[in-house]
Amino acid sequence: MTKNNSNGEIAENNTQGRTALWGGRFSDTQAKIMQAINASIDVDKRLYKQDIQASKAHVSMLMHMAIVSKKDGESILSGLTKIEEEITSGAFVFDVTLEDIHMHVEARLAEIIGDPAKRLHTARSRNDQVATDFKMWIREHIDYLDQILLDFQKTLLTKATDFTDWIMPGFTHLQTAQPITLGHHLMAYYEMIKRDRGRLSDCRKRLNECPLGSAALAGTGFPIDRDMTAKALDFEKPTANSLDAVSDRDFALEFLAALSITSLHLSRLADEIVLWSSPQFNFITLSDHFSSGSSIMPQKRNPDAAELVRAKVGRIAGGFNSLLMVMKGLPLAYSKDMQEDKAYVFQAVDDMELSILAMHGIIETLSPNKNALLDAANNGFSTATDLADWLVRVLNIPFRQAHHITGAAVKMAEKQKCLLKDLSLDMLQSIEPKIDERVYDILSVEKSVTSRISYGGTAPSMVKKAIFTAKKEMENE
Amino acid sequence: MTKNNSNGEIAENNTQGRTALWGGRFSDTQAKIMQAINASIDVDKRLYKQDIQASKAHVSMLMHMAIVSKKDGESILSGLTKIEEEITSGAFVFDVTLEDIHMHVEARLAEIIGDPAKRLHTARSRNDQVATDFKMWIREHIDYLDQILLDFQKTLLTKATDFTDWIMPGFTHLQTAQPITLGHHLMAYYEMIKRDRGRLSDCRKRLNECPLGSAALAGTGFPIDRDMTAKALDFEKPTANSLDAVSDRDFALEFLAALSITSLHLSRLADEIVLWSSPQFNFITLSDHFSSGSSIMPQKRNPDAAELVRAKVGRIAGGFNSLLMVMKGLPLAYSKDMQEDKAYVFQAVDDMELSILAMHGIIETLSPNKNALLDAANNGFSTATDLADWLVRVLNIPFRQAHHITGAAVKMAEKQKCLLKDLSLDMLQSIEPKIDERVYDILSVEKSVTSRISYGGTAPSMVKKAIFTAKKEMENE
Amino acid sequence: MTKNNSNGEIAENNTQGRTALWGGRFSDTQAKIMQAINASIDVDKRLYKQDIQASKAHVSMLMHMAIVSKKDGESILSGLTKIEEEITSGAFVFDVTLEDIHMHVEARLAEIIGDPAKRLHTARSRNDQVATDFKMWIREHIDYLDQILLDFQKTLLTKATDFTDWIMPGFTHLQTAQPITLGHHLMAYYEMIKRDRGRLSDCRKRLNECPLGSAALAGTGFPIDRDMTAKALDFEKPTANSLDAVSDRDFALEFLAALSITSLHLSRLADEIVLWSSPQFNFITLSDHFSSGSSIMPQKRNPDAAELVRAKVGRIAGGFNSLLMVMKGLPLAYSKDMQEDKAYVFQAVDDMELSILAMHGIIETLSPNKNALLDAANNGFSTATDLADWLVRVLNIPFRQAHHITGAAVKMAEKQKCLLKDLSLDMLQSIEPKIDERVYDILSVEKSVTSRISYGGTAPSMVKKAIFTAKKEMENE
Amino acid sequence: MTKNNSNGEIAENNTQGRTALWGGRFSDTQAKIMQAINASIDVDKRLYKQDIQASKAHVSMLMHMAIVSKKDGESILSGLTKIEEEITSGAFVFDVTLEDIHMHVEARLAEIIGDPAKRLHTARSRNDQVATDFKMWIREHIDYLDQILLDFQKTLLTKATDFTDWIMPGFTHLQTAQPITLGHHLMAYYEMIKRDRGRLSDCRKRLNECPLGSAALAGTGFPIDRDMTAKALDFEKPTANSLDAVSDRDFALEFLAALSITSLHLSRLADEIVLWSSPQFNFITLSDHFSSGSSIMPQKRNPDAAELVRAKVGRIAGGFNSLLMVMKGLPLAYSKDMQEDKAYVFQAVDDMELSILAMHGIIETLSPNKNALLDAANNGFSTATDLADWLVRVLNIPFRQAHHITGAAVKMAEKQKCLLKDLSLDMLQSIEPKIDERVYDILSVEKSVTSRISYGGTAPSMVKKAIFTAKKEMENE
Repeated sequence: MTKNNSNGEIAENNTQGRTALWGGRFSDTQAKIMQAINASIDVDKRLYKQDIQASKAHVSMLMHMAIVSKKDGESILSGLTKIEEEITSGAFVFDVTLEDIHMHVEARLAEIIGDPAKRLHTARSRNDQVATDFKMWIREHIDYLDQILLDFQKTLLTKATDFTDWIMPGFTHLQTAQPITLGHHLMAYYEMIKRDRGRLSDCRKRLNECPLGSAALAGTGFPIDRDMTAKALDFEKPTANSLDAVSDRDFALEFLAALSITSLHLSRLADEIVLWSSPQFNFITLSDHFSSGSSIMPQKRNPDAAELVRAKVGRIAGGFNSLLMVMKGLPLAYSKDMQEDKAYVFQAVDDMELSILAMHGIIETLSPNKNALLDAANNGFSTATDLADWLVRVLNIPFRQAHHITGAAVKMAEKQKCLLKDLSLDMLQSIEPKIDERVYDILSVEKSVTSRISYGGTAPSMVKKAIFTAKKEMENE
Repeated sequence: MTKNNSNGEIAENNTQGRTALWGGRFSDTQAKIMQAINASIDVDKRLYKQDIQASKAHVSMLMHMAIVSKKDGESILSGLTKIEEEITSGAFVFDVTLEDIHMHVEARLAEIIGDPAKRLHTARSRNDQVATDFKMWIREHIDYLDQILLDFQKTLLTKATDFTDWIMPGFTHLQTAQPITLGHHLMAYYEMIKRDRGRLSDCRKRLNECPLGSAALAGTGFPIDRDMTAKALDFEKPTANSLDAVSDRDFALEFLAALSITSLHLSRLADEIVLWSSPQFNFITLSDHFSSGSSIMPQKRNPDAAELVRAKVGRIAGGFNSLLMVMKGLPLAYSKDMQEDKAYVFQAVDDMELSILAMHGIIETLSPNKNALLDAANNGFSTATDLADWLVRVLNIPFRQAHHITGAAVKMAEKQKCLLKDLSLDMLQSIEPKIDERVYDILSVEKSVTSRISYGGTAPSMVKKAIFTAKKEMENE
Repeated sequence: MTKNNSNGEIAENNTQGRTALWGGRFSDTQAKIMQAINASIDVDKRLYKQDIQASKAHVSMLMHMAIVSKKDGESILSGLTKIEEEITSGAFVFDVTLEDIHMHVEARLAEIIGDPAKRLHTARSRNDQVATDFKMWIREHIDYLDQILLDFQKTLLTKATDFTDWIMPGFTHLQTAQPITLGHHLMAYYEMIKRDRGRLSDCRKRLNECPLGSAALAGTGFPIDRDMTAKALDFEKPTANSLDAVSDRDFALEFLAALSITSLHLSRLADEIVLWSSPQFNFITLSDHFSSGSSIMPQKRNPDAAELVRAKVGRIAGGFNSLLMVMKGLPLAYSKDMQEDKAYVFQAVDDMELSILAMHGIIETLSPNKNALLDAANNGFSTATDLADWLVRVLNIPFRQAHHITGAAVKMAEKQKCLLKDLSLDMLQSIEPKIDERVYDILSVEKSVTSRISYGGTAPSMVKKAIFTAKKEMENE
Repeated sequence: MTKNNSNGEIAENNTQGRTALWGGRFSDTQAKIMQAINASIDVDKRLYKQDIQASKAHVSMLMHMAIVSKKDGESILSGLTKIEEEITSGAFVFDVTLEDIHMHVEARLAEIIGDPAKRLHTARSRNDQVATDFKMWIREHIDYLDQILLDFQKTLLTKATDFTDWIMPGFTHLQTAQPITLGHHLMAYYEMIKRDRGRLSDCRKRLNECPLGSAALAGTGFPIDRDMTAKALDFEKPTANSLDAVSDRDFALEFLAALSITSLHLSRLADEIVLWSSPQFNFITLSDHFSSGSSIMPQKRNPDAAELVRAKVGRIAGGFNSLLMVMKGLPLAYSKDMQEDKAYVFQAVDDMELSILAMHGIIETLSPNKNALLDAANNGFSTATDLADWLVRVLNIPFRQAHHITGAAVKMAEKQKCLLKDLSLDMLQSIEPKIDERVYDILSVEKSVTSRISYGGTAPSMVKKAIFTAKKEMENE
């Protein structure tokens, strides 16, 4: 039962029974309210592996430094192993009166091994403990996110390879601007994900300092070895200031900010999926797996998964914003307000991981409609800028004047209800006598696309190069 | 098991087993991802009472209009009653493949009563159904919130009565500004809650139009009576435009905005509680019920509950912001993105209800420290403005010049390390010869407070009047 | 020069000269920084009319209560009139060392009338003064917003009248769902704006209590008449608690929340405008006035204005969120943080007013493409639900079974590449023998639309009724 | 005149004259509204240096590649130099009909050099141009921010050196927890700023790819050399995908997220400043430079600057949130919505730079009150955990049992109204007989602080080491 439910049920009961909560013996009610607002176990039990792992590292160090005896230490270690097994197997009983995961583990340890359990908390406090656990949890999820983003990039590369030279309209203002290739379009998302992974990687590096041993806020007088615990838990080093170590939630904020930007990218792609699968665009057909049908209109595929991915940015970005608001103006060091941090991060990670997996699946399984894409590219005189550029490049006409000539050609084609490439040379020369046969080399969308060979351009040859480079980058990781 | 957990577990498993989700038969994995992102049952099952109540009103109307036969209709009604009992008792089995609460109820109805179940969905769709259920749920919680806010106001009045003439410093910039009474301070929060309740009441009025019968988006050709269902469900009237009815989430947004402002008020009060219970202020002593102790420092009372109330505004305001972001730029009518709406509202309501109950408990059980409050009020020459006002009022000295004289008196008192009221008349006359004995009528904090009898002022006599008026207001509700 | 500029310039200079700001005599630099962060005159000078009006009401009351002499009072009144003229005409010189609008007015008054100026600030402080001015400013802009929203509603009604029976597709998930009328679609926005105006009106009522006379925070000992000033400034009554009066910014928050929802509505309409003017949709042609062209593609109309309206919700909603964050956890009464309130509100009002005027202009001047709308409505078997409903209503087939039959008919039409209405009776009867000639009464989009006569439905007859009701509502305002 | 003003004035006029804007010739009004919403010159003129610098690099490359003749190119270069001088000197006339900075420069160039001006826009578009300019502007401000943050760190180090062993209470929940040193406290902020600078540095690296040459969205057919322009403008390399290059605003978002976290840190420090300068805390005395006084209470120092720094996080974080909302769900490539990006970034940079400079000044000039800090540290039995740790460390009593003994000692001291260190050995032994003389080595706050020598701990010896390390880090930059 999660905290949400827990609160929810209190609320629901109140709604039914109204005075239930404030009736009865007053202090009982108070106890319930305090427990409901104070306990975090329904949220923070997700930290159990990290909490046990960190406790093991801590007690091993205490043994090494002779602060805890070998015998007590080994007893603690085996007790912790047993607790981890109990929680993983589902045998462990959670109890809201024990507030949080740290107290659950410690209380159960006392049950299992007795008195030596009391030595585990030497030279640490819940403040450094929770910061350590939480950093480890985020670090682990950064690694998982990095992997599923990499998987998604691979699928983008595969699809970009398949559609290297499939022509489609490039839009500005959702108006047809210039023809591009679908491969090029997909590679734009490859680049975004690359930056997303870079941000996660930077966040991981920056958070990778171990708070353990900062104790409540001031450090400790016990002769501990913080380098040893930091190393055991795969941190680069211990944090440099004990007060900062227990007050800091930068790592959660930076992580949420990075996820916000990643989810923004997915929301943009999701919006394109929704647009492209509308009957008006008809650029793609979604697979049954990532759309929902209608019993009444069997041909219909509602892009539900894409719509939900588009929506998730709301909650993920909301998490960053909420945690900032919670932390705003808090004096050092630890305040209870900070307990709210985990709910935001867990929710954002759940939303993010699901969004990435869903979008990966959508892209993997959709079918582009080659003809519809091509027809749309031909629409709207999308090669007009090619004509203007040709006038500049080949006939050496100044740019702004070339625009004027092109405008006249477009008007003519519109009047003739034909494409630019279907205007006769006579017609074109009636606008600008210097135009010659070579102009037809660039007037079709195919030729337009092929000509865009500047670095990063949409020409299939350049898209191939970009894919090649991307593959090499990924091999070198 | 809530959605959070459900997603959470997928995520955790992935983290452990990494390729688990994308391994195995591909389409199985896809099905799981789609289900995980698409299903809302873990969230929207909280709507079950409303869903069943609305279905009953709908089928009763269909019977009345002879769209559904009496026999079928009665069969549906009794089936729905049975389902409600099953869910309330916990006997009902939820199944994530059935997506949402509407499908759960309908599927179970078919199991119980067979073919007639298929007639329930006549002349409605999930789009108008969910809008109706959700409005009813919010309406019910507005009523509950209104009641617990009223309860809180009553406690504020009781406490304001107890502390009508307890003198404390009024702060600006967290600097002592003028003496006020604790009763007056508490009455400021009474006013805030009054506006909060007004906003909720306005929100309730505005949302109280029934979407049922708007069907998918266009209305229906069945001869339904929307006034009848609206009335049966206690709505003021049916919504006026079917497209708007299924696209609109204003009611959720306005509700979340109102809660954001309420939670802001509680965050301000909570911050005061934290400040006031610090050893530096020592204005109040928290009860054991709403603080947490320290095994090591038995006298210590950490204001955990207040800190958590202060934090909750982060998530509640985040909910408004997130839902706005989700809805931003969505074309009409229904898009799946809108399914996210309920998670924000349920979470905000849980946080809000708990915050109000906790803050009510904190205020109810705290003990103000009369002497500490009075000492602090005497501190900082808090009656300096009284002196300046007296110079203006009694000696007819212009305001800005009165300021100058007062500044000199304060400097003198500072040098003498005494309060303003302890300066001798000789001393005061050395600054301004016109000052006479009467000045001592206003120099003590007690006299200062007593003198502030402008409407809404802090004088105990005015606070009593304000309490009297407030009580009458509440009686007239 | 606005504050933005002012800060901006400091920043730019620093960037150029790097150490400029921290070089030189240290205390000079400090003075500049303090001034730059502290002064609000560049923002709050927009309150000048309100500030002068409130000062006039205040001094008139002071005269009436004999707290200020008739002679001094009249001198102050004429001085204030002169200052208002100076500011309105542009002759007034603003000076950043005078911090805010209140000090500007007071300093100038002293220049003009000498000593009596010093009596104006009797029995008030900047805290109640700014709250009063700001409420008056918002109130005035609510009235203006209400008017331009009403103007926009009128245009929506005119357009809905013009297009009462123009058929277009109604979308869910951006998939064609059911045919609707353009008139009905526009009336959905009429309803949204109606709620928007309701929220503004409620906000106006709630804020309409006058803080003036609350003084710094505690009220005053001067025998003032707060009812008199409240009445003179068109407030319903004075605020009931002096501490609340100077601490409260609910009115700004509630106003920003209301604007956020209004701007959300405009963002949804704007997104539809962008979609509808894409070549793929081609539902509308924008006027030159609210689009931007391309010298190279003269036929092109970029929906710039709509895109910008769509974007504005970002900053308006951001304003609400920012002000909440600023106010979060602030102890009573006034803190300097609250000075930031005006920048958010002024920006939001500017964005909002411009968005409404622009969207009004867009709607007023666009041309719907009747044939494109109709073709799109015919697309996608949009009358499938009509067929299913007909099977239920006329043949008494249960709803879910009717869905099955309809699915078969849609598949057949898809195979035949025809519309549902073009299937022969034989074909339809091969699926369900009970189907008869009457079915053709509902299979065309025209007949579908005409049939939706439930209250709030899309039938032209119902849209006409809705327009009629709306006009009556507006007449009664 | 900035955009704010411009809009503001329209709005104000409307409010006065009501129908002014919609009166008159309709198309005139429309033109004004469109211009007001569409023009960005009041905002983006701050990009003028970057725009001209990028144009120069572009035309130099065009000359090098023989796309533009040497003669024309040099004419363009000298024209651009002249324009920069005009703008810098203030001689340049801005005109709202020319929309944005790019058009202003180009139009002026045509005036100055005539026809060759038309060749400047070859092989680029406004889309890649604005992305390039904006990245350069942000990069420059990152460098400036890095410098003023470094300056601030230096001051923190100086102050931490001054106050290495000044004892003060360390708080959790704003309750006295353990004694720490003021030097240690200040070093916590040093660490935060260090991470802040790290985030800015990572952001700078990631954004440092040059969009120029991506043209409208598809790249270009001109034989341009993007490496050459990238190098000339100090970018690491050209962007890899032309579509991404013009659609991407990650750099602005990541920058705003980094600033949000920095401003959060300053808000926490600012809140401490406000608290510490309250009469209740009295930990510090602010300098006149960064506080505001009261004519009436000359001793008073309102911490206005700190309050404003605390507030700024609202707008800075709001900027991130707003831009995310603007970008949410935007299909590729460029949409006009994105024009709003600069307003958020410019505002955030202005707020951020000012906040850093103000906070630097506050810290530089404040005076801590040594005795008040020490007294507060002695308050609240802050060495209770030292006693518990001593019982564990020296007497080998289990941790939880040591807590129990300590609790008894604290109760005894409370009863005796003395500090822990003032309890006699007899008294202590009455609680736990094994306690001996050595206990007094840790019971005073001085000894407590001195004992915290774990890495990162608060002992003056450790703070000195931390300062030494920090200085070395900064030397190596």
